[in-house]
Amino acid sequence: MSRADFQPADASFAERVLKSFNKQGIMAHMGASMPVIEPGYCEIHLPFKADLTQQHGFFHGGVIGMIADSAAGFAGYSLTGADAGVLTIEYKMNIVAPGDGELLIAEGTVIKPGRNVSVTKADVFAVKNGKRKLCATMLQSLAVRTGIPDFLG
Amino acid sequence: MSRADFQPADASFAERVLKSFNKQGIMAHMGASMPVIEPGYCEIHLPFKADLTQQHGFFHGGVIGMIADSAAGFAGYSLTGADAGVLTIEYKMNIVAPGDGELLIAEGTVIKPGRNVSVTKADVFAVKNGKRKLCATMLQSLAVRTGIPDFLG
Amino acid sequence: MSRADFQPADASFAERVLKSFNKQGIMAHMGASMPVIEPGYCEIHLPFKADLTQQHGFFHGGVIGMIADSAAGFAGYSLTGADAGVLTIEYKMNIVAPGDGELLIAEGTVIKPGRNVSVTKADVFAVKNGKRKLCATMLQSLAVRTGIPDFLG
Amino acid sequence: MSRADFQPADASFAERVLKSFNKQGIMAHMGASMPVIEPGYCEIHLPFKADLTQQHGFFHGGVIGMIADSAAGFAGYSLTGADAGVLTIEYKMNIVAPGDGELLIAEGTVIKPGRNVSVTKADVFAVKNGKRKLCATMLQSLAVRTGIPDFLG
Repeated sequence: MSRADFQPADASFAERVLKSFNKQGIMAHMGASMPVIEPGYCEIHLPFKADLTQQHGFFHGGVIGMIADSAAGFAGYSLTGADAGVLTIEYKMNIVAPGDGELLIAEGTVIKPGRNVSVTKADVFAVKNGKRKLCATMLQSLAVRTGIPDFLG
Repeated sequence: MSRADFQPADASFAERVLKSFNKQGIMAHMGASMPVIEPGYCEIHLPFKADLTQQHGFFHGGVIGMIADSAAGFAGYSLTGADAGVLTIEYKMNIVAPGDGELLIAEGTVIKPGRNVSVTKADVFAVKNGKRKLCATMLQSLAVRTGIPDFLG
Repeated sequence: MSRADFQPADASFAERVLKSFNKQGIMAHMGASMPVIEPGYCEIHLPFKADLTQQHGFFHGGVIGMIADSAAGFAGYSLTGADAGVLTIEYKMNIVAPGDGELLIAEGTVIKPGRNVSVTKADVFAVKNGKRKLCATMLQSLAVRTGIPDFLG
Repeated sequence: MSRADFQPADASFAERVLKSFNKQGIMAHMGASMPVIEPGYCEIHLPFKADLTQQHGFFHGGVIGMIADSAAGFAGYSLTGADAGVLTIEYKMNIVAPGDGELLIAEGTVIKPGRNVSVTKADVFAVKNGKRKLCATMLQSLAVRTGIPDFLG
């Protein structure tokens, strides 16, 4: 739940991040939203739906990975200049508990912003009966590119 | 496209893998199928749909990750005994090109089967106008568990 | 610099960890020490030596990786029972700055202890003129094994 | 043991790679050599020494990681132009067997060369009584930088 402590390069970072997030067809399709955007930090919330499950009725690991990748990517994107963007080079995710609950929250945080490469992380929590439990943690590398003002998930 | 060279512990591995795959709500929902199942190897095919895209109309990186995770996981599951299963400990994926095409193919292969932990990999190709291009490569660790005959994605 | 908050299963965890650390020939050979051991947390300190460098005279990335792997592994080992041990399944490390300084400090922390698999992390700092700077961050999976009371690096 | 199939951008790639390798103090100190350099592929060989061991007398996992990182990094470096170099962004390594033998061989291969980022891999084999066995597999991201003609390990 720790939040990053960075100065944004672009004062309109929150609008820019939200606009890019809203362009991703799959996020809307799954029902994901982004209620928190801060410099170097953002949250994706995803309510439970049966379409998002694996065999035991929990959130599918791939869904957990998707919102982790996006939350960390948009956190990185929040710190670029207005005309720059980021794209995922790679990420590594550990699943530490089943995605069992009525809501997933992915918290993306920048570890080290860079001119060419930014390093970010995400923690994903399953909320069950109002109680949060860590279900995955992710470490991600982003390429920073000028002229592509988006997070390309 | 290299295929693994393993002896299955369970002669009915292919039925078992397919049955587990078919129980995953999200795979059916996305339109994914598993046309190839061999000992230590399987393929997931996913035709293009607008619901699966990011901003530029390519397959979303999260979708690429999801089928990579599943293809490698089911490859690992194909080598367990009839009463055992696998679950993802972690994976790491490099995105090397956009998911641009009419079809994604994820090839999952076992690198090293184990009694407690199996190491697997997946390569994901985008097929455009019939031509395959590598878009992601993944390295994955699976926990092997008796009494849970499934790949828990 | 955050420290974990765990109850040790074995009251003699610190002696056990230090004894295992001291058996590793390469740690002594490099000049590494372990001055801090807490439940789920430990530190490895490594003073500069020319034998440990890459081309630019900084600590070699492989040396940074080695003490990160060990710090996280021994953090995991500090939480096992007296007759159990851990071994590295895998780790992933991001290098975020050169290892430039008179001392490296690797801080290993447990994220999620488990009966079969524990997830840990390490941050490595280069200390230059007394000032700490993050140079690498690592995420690691450990297998927990009874009957092997060691961290097998 | 598969070898890459790439055209070098610099005809003197092998001399350049070897020169950079020879500048790394720690590789000489450990006794490592680089007997094979091809476009997008290289091998590091490391004979057994007691200084390189963990508790059970096997090669330390950190040593395995170090030569894996270097072999993959120099493979990436073999494909850059004469005035460019590479540095490790990150790598992820699975340990699949103990480093038990008289010799370690790390084979580094380029998966996807890039203008800004190259993706590479390494497999490490322990050779015991002349028989090779896979002990680790690694996936790595390199940043390509002009003006730094080296692999900065």
